[in-house]
Amino acid sequence: PPVAPLECLINDDYPVQCLKTTDKDEIVYMPFSFIEKYFEVYGAMKHYDGYDRFEFSHSYGKVINELPTPYTYHGMLMSFDTYNVEVRDRVKCVSGIEGVPLSSQWGKHGYFYGIQICQYGLSHYCKNLVQKLPQETVYEDADTIQPVWKQSNKQCITQYVDDPLIRNKVVKFTTPDSIPLGSGLTLHIGNTVERVLSFDIRFVGNGSISVMVDTNDKAKQYTIHYITNNLLLDFDHRSNIFYGIGATQSWRHIARDLVTDLRKGIGLSSTKKKKVKTSITKVTCLIVRGSGFIDNITVSTSQHMSQFQAASDWIVKNQDPESGGWKNDIERVLPGYDPIPPGWLSAMGQGQALSLLSRAYYVYKNESYLKTLALGLLPFTLPSNKGGVQAMFMGKYVWYEEYPTSPSSFVLNGFIYSLIGLYDFKSLLEDQFGMGSENLPADTVTQSERLGVNLPKVYSQASKLFQDGMTSLKAMLPLYDGGTRTFYDLRHFILKIQPKIARWDYHVTHLDQLALMSSISDDPIFQQVFQRWKGYTVGKPSQHN
Amino acid sequence: PPVAPLECLINDDYPVQCLKTTDKDEIVYMPFSFIEKYFEVYGAMKHYDGYDRFEFSHSYGKVINELPTPYTYHGMLMSFDTYNVEVRDRVKCVSGIEGVPLSSQWGKHGYFYGIQICQYGLSHYCKNLVQKLPQETVYEDADTIQPVWKQSNKQCITQYVDDPLIRNKVVKFTTPDSIPLGSGLTLHIGNTVERVLSFDIRFVGNGSISVMVDTNDKAKQYTIHYITNNLLLDFDHRSNIFYGIGATQSWRHIARDLVTDLRKGIGLSSTKKKKVKTSITKVTCLIVRGSGFIDNITVSTSQHMSQFQAASDWIVKNQDPESGGWKNDIERVLPGYDPIPPGWLSAMGQGQALSLLSRAYYVYKNESYLKTLALGLLPFTLPSNKGGVQAMFMGKYVWYEEYPTSPSSFVLNGFIYSLIGLYDFKSLLEDQFGMGSENLPADTVTQSERLGVNLPKVYSQASKLFQDGMTSLKAMLPLYDGGTRTFYDLRHFILKIQPKIARWDYHVTHLDQLALMSSISDDPIFQQVFQRWKGYTVGKPSQHN
Ligand SMILES: [Ca+2]
Ligand SMILES: [Ca+2]
Repeated sequence: PPVAPLECLINDDYPVQCLKTTDKDEIVYMPFSFIEKYFEVYGAMKHYDGYDRFEFSHSYGKVINELPTPYTYHGMLMSFDTYNVEVRDRVKCVSGIEGVPLSSQWGKHGYFYGIQICQYGLSHYCKNLVQKLPQETVYEDADTIQPVWKQSNKQCITQYVDDPLIRNKVVKFTTPDSIPLGSGLTLHIGNTVERVLSFDIRFVGNGSISVMVDTNDKAKQYTIHYITNNLLLDFDHRSNIFYGIGATQSWRHIARDLVTDLRKGIGLSSTKKKKVKTSITKVTCLIVRGSGFIDNITVSTSQHMSQFQAASDWIVKNQDPESGGWKNDIERVLPGYDPIPPGWLSAMGQGQALSLLSRAYYVYKNESYLKTLALGLLPFTLPSNKGGVQAMFMGKYVWYEEYPTSPSSFVLNGFIYSLIGLYDFKSLLEDQFGMGSENLPADTVTQSERLGVNLPKVYSQASKLFQDGMTSLKAMLPLYDGGTRTFYDLRHFILKIQPKIARWDYHVTHLDQLALMSSISDDPIFQQVFQRWKGYTVGKPSQHN
Repeated sequence: PPVAPLECLINDDYPVQCLKTTDKDEIVYMPFSFIEKYFEVYGAMKHYDGYDRFEFSHSYGKVINELPTPYTYHGMLMSFDTYNVEVRDRVKCVSGIEGVPLSSQWGKHGYFYGIQICQYGLSHYCKNLVQKLPQETVYEDADTIQPVWKQSNKQCITQYVDDPLIRNKVVKFTTPDSIPLGSGLTLHIGNTVERVLSFDIRFVGNGSISVMVDTNDKAKQYTIHYITNNLLLDFDHRSNIFYGIGATQSWRHIARDLVTDLRKGIGLSSTKKKKVKTSITKVTCLIVRGSGFIDNITVSTSQHMSQFQAASDWIVKNQDPESGGWKNDIERVLPGYDPIPPGWLSAMGQGQALSLLSRAYYVYKNESYLKTLALGLLPFTLPSNKGGVQAMFMGKYVWYEEYPTSPSSFVLNGFIYSLIGLYDFKSLLEDQFGMGSENLPADTVTQSERLGVNLPKVYSQASKLFQDGMTSLKAMLPLYDGGTRTFYDLRHFILKIQPKIARWDYHVTHLDQLALMSSISDDPIFQQVFQRWKGYTVGKPSQHN
């Protein structure tokens, strides 16, 4: 249709150049560039099915429609299978010593952040649930696969020995102390498909494992060195990346995502915020240096359960025995509130730890997970200003605080995560120990004594904390409903300031959480609110009068 | 620019035909018809300054920027000068007997609705404050203006007599009882400019005053008959409209907006919702029938103070002496709540009555207004379920309910109107009786006895009710903030349903009320919220994270 320019005056304020058809219909067209900015919507040209079209989206969040199956404490958690925690910019790297991510979100030197570690563990657990079995290639197991090791010099020696602990053959290696990093005993790999390296190792004294990789970065070769020291991460700004793996002298399993290790290393040099996108085209070889034993050298597509277990073990090891909490050793500054000094607890952290360890116990039946779970309830019973995570809304509704601000902030997603954690632990106690049934199992007392956990008492505590929280959630959920979007927290009511609208990915988190809640609760409110809030993502607001 | 059609896919759901420039910029244009419906915005072609432009508006409300002057209890109330209460579709007509509007909003037979009557009075009071002095033409005052009256027959007689009450000359008229309606004694008017008829009259026995008007409705002539009976309103579906003015045999002042009377009459016949737009081109003549006295026959552009006084007097006369309230004798049905049976009180009604009568007392110093005001506080002290208007939010904040629903609904605008009323009465007591000052005036006790109103006690009651309400308002205001629009009430929190977004004219009412509040309160919250909510009307939402 023939068109002519038309001036459009926006809210009696500023002009925008529009078009009008010159036929009698006089159809007015506004440029998408204006609509995009004014309404904060999204659009992109797409070509498929043989022609161009323009895809307009109200929001950028990917909304799930429903949970595929009823929720269980050992199953999928929301859409955690799609989380790639370690890839995030705010993760400095995955620690070589602990095998869990280090956050740099609120402190660039890096610190362990319980929530992030739980999410790392849970995401790998969920990926393991839904992904195909990993593809893996074993390059050395000393039993059936015995490759050739290339020596840097004649004093570099490998031999096969029986290990009494592992109870099969392992490689014993020895290289001189004076040999430079990156030399020693080389095992050719040449893998162009898989990217996760794993092996079992026991060092005797100091040593290192270096991995050479080819990349798509102008065909450059990088070497990632894993060294028996306490270095976190370093990069020589050329081609060498260094991770400390600690000086442990006992057998351990190490699993490293080489792409992540590479990118976090290169990222150290970039002052820009630009994401490193270097890819590995080939894992070339592995070089051991020092003295010790190695076995089961494998390159695979994933090692999710190793990563899940590393996170679970970190959580067990790092629980504060007094408070039962995972202390966040970083100051947290929330606008409008006094800074929260280091050492604070988060109900979300507690909840995610419960979700993580409930799954870990389900898989490994490790009693330390159960003890940690039980102690993890303690902070839910204490107010934030007494070192716990509990808050009260209007003196009536109990709330578990993601951040122990004063006054309270009532962050919605963190609260729901804490309820999911309580539900998971409660369900574990029901499923594995028969708690919550009419008649407790006959061996409850002996079980409790054996585990060092008073099962009925802990169950009743978890149940009450969960039920009280659900009562609050059902009552307060409407306070997060903005009619067109949702609120992240209740700071507007508490501080009398503007509401903090949840950005679309938090909105989608709310939706994912409601879907989960509607699967574990009979109350229709969760389905109703889910449907309404889902409507907001496609521009369907609540009614006006 | 040359353009080509482009398919746009909305939220992966449905297509909209758009345009794209065929140059290298590939600018995408979306039709306003889509934008208008999808985002519920407004637009219209306007021609001025010699060219066409398209005016885009986010909302349709007219936002005031600030109060022109500090608010006073006897000054302008918000933008009530722009209200045309009697013109509204939900007003059946202005009663000939009471001189106040009758509502048909929740019952088509018509009923008196206190809030509407107050708004009618207040709007005319405010119009009187801001409008130019009315233009008026006197057609008969028996003293200086003595026109010719045309007789239908010789038994129709006028004579000038001295009236002992009015203390000047008036017209005494007599016509036979048998004479038909619309005949009798005719006074030629022929006014093509003014439309409000007023006169003083005292009937002896039955009679009528008929007014003939020419209209733009195919030059049709209508006659509006004001008859000494209790008829509300009738229309013969041809050209005769009938209003009862009651059988009162004493002097009274009658002021009628002929356009309103005409339109409400014609409107009776229309089954469609279409607004009657017939205009009067000329007020032709006035015909009296029956026996009695008449004086000061005037046609003017307005009679605002007559209408204000009629409303004030209705309010005094119709206060329930027991509850102190203005009972609404109509069932009120609010979705999601049990119907409220007739006889309920509204805090908004109480408040608007306080605003009306505070102004009435200021102007007329009529003691009955003061007594009514004092008694009007009583419902604020009782909960809704005990016949009052008080509610409590979360056991902590007192609230005055526009509708006494169970559970409470917390309608924002009605609450603020109630606070304005309390403020007005409190200010009247300060201004006129020196209440609230360090030392009460020496004559306070005698004044109180003379007026039959315990001034200090009533003042302390009004002050406390106002202050308590302000505390609640300041605390709860953020709960009405949707981040992009405002909420009409808190039904979403109370009933756990979707929020009721305030339509733009209620949003503007919120703004007008906040502007007023910021004028009478030092708390910066009112200015802050005003500015933020004003931003919403031009598409500036609160921040998201
Ligand atoms: Ca082996
Ligand atoms: Ca006179």
